[in-house]
Formats: sequence, structure tokens, C-alpha cells
Amino acid sequence: MGRAKKKAAKTKVVAPESSGRFAYDGLERAIHEKARLGIMTSLVSNQEGLLFSDLKELCCLTDGNLSRHIKVLQDAGLVEDWKGFKQRRPQTRYRLTPKGRKRFLGYVSELERVIADAATATAAANAKTDTNSPINRKLRGLSPA
Amino acid sequence: MGRAKKKAAKTKVVAPESSGRFAYDGLERAIHEKARLGIMTSLVSNQEGLLFSDLKELCCLTDGNLSRHIKVLQDAGLVEDWKGFKQRRPQTRYRLTPKGRKRFLGYVSELERVIADAATATAAANAKTDTNSPINRKLRGLSPA
Repeated sequence: MGRAKKKAAKTKVVAPESSGRFAYDGLERAIHEKARLGIMTSLVSNQEGLLFSDLKELCCLTDGNLSRHIKVLQDAGLVEDWKGFKQRRPQTRYRLTPKGRKRFLGYVSELERVIADAATATAAANAKTDTNSPINRKLRGLSPA
Repeated sequence: MGRAKKKAAKTKVVAPESSGRFAYDGLERAIHEKARLGIMTSLVSNQEGLLFSDLKELCCLTDGNLSRHIKVLQDAGLVEDWKGFKQRRPQTRYRLTPKGRKRFLGYVSELERVIADAATATAAANAKTDTNSPINRKLRGLSPA
């Protein structure tokens, strides 16, 4: 075995690739907070924007909480307000900015990674403990019922 | 139209079923916080438990942060420490409690609902804006390329 190969094998034992495996850096705090996640998902579902009162009802938030969270999202450049009209009366609606939409999609990909990790883990755990699972039946040489 | 039917139709306009549609009550705060979500996913992936140093590396946390978050999870009854042995030397490992596993699975189901909502919304938005999408081709009476 060459020296380089030996070194590579040794590096593998330390498993540096596991470092930060569950850090989920893509779950950015501006979006991840539970109330803001609800606001962002409401807005991504309503491209034409939503009224303050719609958001309040959809996300079950008080006026104060909703204002505070919208401010965080506006300061981060993810949400904007704009003036629309309904039956000639002006309205203020909230909607995602293009940046907000892009960042939300990135956030959702990271969430999908969390779910994939959890699914892999629970499938492995079930296979270990459920003695009647296909994999354990196979291990015991049994055919499926 | 009967009076009852009229009333039902009127109620539908107000759409009370949308109230709290995006509240995501299942995203409980003890698990949802980003660092704790990483800890919980690490532990669900390692049934035999993990050392403090393993968790630190997997989740990219400092000693102080990791201690603080483990304490929150222990106080909520989701994580426990237990004494194991490695080469006859005692070790303290952290693992999920049965309650912790159950609550984590409930949490993950709610995450799946967030992703499903986001996926539905973005698919609808893409169909609206992508003039070459199958649905818009169909609307324009074009067959697929």
C-alpha cells in the first residue's frame, strides 16, 4: 500500500465528512421561525399578495405578533408591501419579493433534507426492531406472509 | 334556495376553514429551533446514543450552545442521558426517550405538510408563469413538443 493510499485510509477512519452533517445551515433564521414560516408559505401560495387581515387569520397571529414578524421579513428583503385596489378603494397587500421567493425555495430544499434524514433513520430503526419486517424476515429465511 | 342553503353559501365566502391554515401548530418550539432540530435528527439516526463530542461535531455547536439546547430537550422529556461503557471506561451518552421519538415523528409529519403546501404553491405559480408548461400549452390548444 502506497503512502498516499495509507493516508487516505487513515483520514477515512476519522470521518471528517460527518462534521456538520446535521448543522442544516440552509435553515435560515429569518424564515425558520414558526410564525414567519407560516407567513412565507401563505405568501408563496398567494402570488397576488395578501391583506394584513388575511395573514392574521391564515396564520392565527395577533396584530402585534404579525406586525413584528412582517417587519423582520421586510428588513431581510424577503417581503414587500404594495398598493392595490379593490372596488376602487386602495388596499395594502403583502407579497414575496423575487429574492424572498428564491430564498424560500432554498429553505424548502433544506427542509426536504431534514425529512430525508429522519425517514432514513426511522426506516433503519424499524427494520432493526420490527422482527416481522421484510428485511428481518429475509434475515431469518422466512418468506412474506 | 332554502334559508339553510343560503346561509351555508354565505359562510363559504368568508371561508372559515382557512382560519389557521398556515399556523402549523405541530411545529413545537422545543424541536423546531434549528440547533435542536439538528440534535434530534442526529439522535433519531443513532439509536445507541451519541457522546457530547459526537453531537458537537455533527451539529457544529460550541460546548455552551450544545449544553443549553440539550438541557431544553431534557427538561421537555425528549432526550435522556445514560451511562454506557467503552473498553471498560464509563461514558455518558445522549439518546431520545420513547416520548422524544414519538414527538419527533409527529413534528416531521407537520414538516411534510409545510413542504406539500410549498410544492403545491410553486407548481401552481410555475404553471401560471411558464407559458410553455403542459397546462398552459393545453389552455392554448397546443400539443406537447
